[in-house]
Amino acid sequence: MFENKENSNTSIENLGEFGLIDHLTKNFKIKQKSTVKGIGDDAAVISCDAKKELIVSTDLLLEGVHFDLSYMPLKHLGYKAVVVNLSDIYAMNAQPTQITVSIAVSNRFPIEALEELYAGIEAAAKTYNVDVVGGDTTSSTTGLLISITALGAVNKGEAVYRSGANENDLLVVTGDLGAAYMGLQILEREKEVFKVNPNSQPDLEPYSYLVERQLKPEARKDILKLLEELEVKPTAMIDISDGLSSEILHICKSSNVGCNLFEDKIPLDPQVISTCEEFNLDSTTIALSGGEDYELLFTIKTEDYPKIKANPHLTVIGHMTHEKEGMHLISRAGTKIPLVARGWNALKSNG
Amino acid sequence: MFENKENSNTSIENLGEFGLIDHLTKNFKIKQKSTVKGIGDDAAVISCDAKKELIVSTDLLLEGVHFDLSYMPLKHLGYKAVVVNLSDIYAMNAQPTQITVSIAVSNRFPIEALEELYAGIEAAAKTYNVDVVGGDTTSSTTGLLISITALGAVNKGEAVYRSGANENDLLVVTGDLGAAYMGLQILEREKEVFKVNPNSQPDLEPYSYLVERQLKPEARKDILKLLEELEVKPTAMIDISDGLSSEILHICKSSNVGCNLFEDKIPLDPQVISTCEEFNLDSTTIALSGGEDYELLFTIKTEDYPKIKANPHLTVIGHMTHEKEGMHLISRAGTKIPLVARGWNALKSNG
Repeated sequence: MFENKENSNTSIENLGEFGLIDHLTKNFKIKQKSTVKGIGDDAAVISCDAKKELIVSTDLLLEGVHFDLSYMPLKHLGYKAVVVNLSDIYAMNAQPTQITVSIAVSNRFPIEALEELYAGIEAAAKTYNVDVVGGDTTSSTTGLLISITALGAVNKGEAVYRSGANENDLLVVTGDLGAAYMGLQILEREKEVFKVNPNSQPDLEPYSYLVERQLKPEARKDILKLLEELEVKPTAMIDISDGLSSEILHICKSSNVGCNLFEDKIPLDPQVISTCEEFNLDSTTIALSGGEDYELLFTIKTEDYPKIKANPHLTVIGHMTHEKEGMHLISRAGTKIPLVARGWNALKSNG
Repeated sequence: MFENKENSNTSIENLGEFGLIDHLTKNFKIKQKSTVKGIGDDAAVISCDAKKELIVSTDLLLEGVHFDLSYMPLKHLGYKAVVVNLSDIYAMNAQPTQITVSIAVSNRFPIEALEELYAGIEAAAKTYNVDVVGGDTTSSTTGLLISITALGAVNKGEAVYRSGANENDLLVVTGDLGAAYMGLQILEREKEVFKVNPNSQPDLEPYSYLVERQLKPEARKDILKLLEELEVKPTAMIDISDGLSSEILHICKSSNVGCNLFEDKIPLDPQVISTCEEFNLDSTTIALSGGEDYELLFTIKTEDYPKIKANPHLTVIGHMTHEKEGMHLISRAGTKIPLVARGWNALKSNG
């Protein structure tokens, strides 16, 4: 289906570890002036600016746990692995600057496959203006593994934490939710069809948005610019990787507040609604627990509402309450349902 | 043999991912004043000092590739995983400040096993005065995997690269070489004995130094202090992770110089010499290619020789030559033998 078709197969052993890193990263350009020394020494060297604070985030992606190479092309995987990390940096109200990329691969991957993976990494680094400054390449006894650490910078004191939300703050989400999870359902279904009939040609056109959200997500770097232009500084912020409910609970727990989330306000793409109907799934459950949306979830002071209300990228989905009131979903029927964290993994193992 | 004997077995699923990270890191203390925010948000926040440069290094360790849990206790593994990374920071002439730790584990590991691993990580963080500021915990379909990124700081312009060596500079190594590799041979041998007779009690006393160097290596933080006291600044520096010859070639290649290395100057512990005899191995080959020594290899200007010559921690093992002269080992018999990179992995697969 989306599998990477390679004509030539060069063994990794032909290059050796040092040759391999050099080979894979030789075209990478240094873009950030803070990068003093990138790949090629024991460590990278980065200049410091006393007016800034440094942000560090790290993520680990494993084949068979976080991705399935039967429908995830390696170039997309490389791109997504970077995006997932940068999303955490934006969620701190910071600009990403550098990343390190470590990979472990079994020898079933020819060099051409790693070149595809690194082409995706390079594409993301270019889109988001970050430098690849280091990494480690090792052999694996089983599948493919990618570990990325992202660095970023923010003006001193301007980092936005999960812990800054106050009672009465409005809860705002960017974009729409649930599409990446439904894209995964589509891809899993097509994989099963492919197993039965390898000649079948799937028509993914009706699901194009969902599949794109799963295979090539983007981090919301545009939102930081937008908020700056609107002169709104979030009181708390987090990115949505594990599903809306899980992230709301993180903000509530860190900020010692409660929350009312309104079901009818949750932004859903029409493809999510129609595909949920097709799969006989509840779209609210998918938005709450689907995960991998990489949208930003943040709280703002009520007086900032006029600044954001007309914006098509931003949706007010609820408000923060006193801690004692707890965390609830207010259903379309007006029922108060306690919010529980059921992330992507939990949903998957039950679904 | 050294296996970790656990009485209680608590499943990881009982805690969940977020509970697990909280549980494993709850006793970790913040020691560095530059750590503004550690674990518990989308990313860590670190203050910047314009007089400093930031150093970043990352390493990936996989079960079955880099370690064998049948003789590596989990606490030692945690300690070693940190040390290996910090060694890269010291090799830049920098002080380590923070680390992030990501792990992937299969569910064959109970929480008590991860507590052991994190106890080792915490012990190393304490010894080397670094903060654990982030990480990721995920499930693995196979064994255990540890990915660590280390951050460090050095006064602006004081970082020492691989590329600064000049013709006539002296080549200096700290400590002694080959012991960690011979420790591995001892442990592998005892593992085979154990397979045949599980009741055998190995006498490791004659090999205590070798086994310690393999299971609990230390990074040479003392050397940076020593060099500062001696008022010697290396022209180039690298740490010895893959074997002396491989690291010398890195310096030569980066600095565009050649090298004469004198076999009779290579520092060897008596246990290395006697155990090499016992295993019928050439001790020079082991020192050149054994790896995992985590000693520092550096070059100094000839005029600095009087400052270091009496020091028991430092041994001059050769000198840099013009690039055209190439890289050679001068044997005890006075023969010039070309130096080739044969790292730990290569040696292992041939040995």
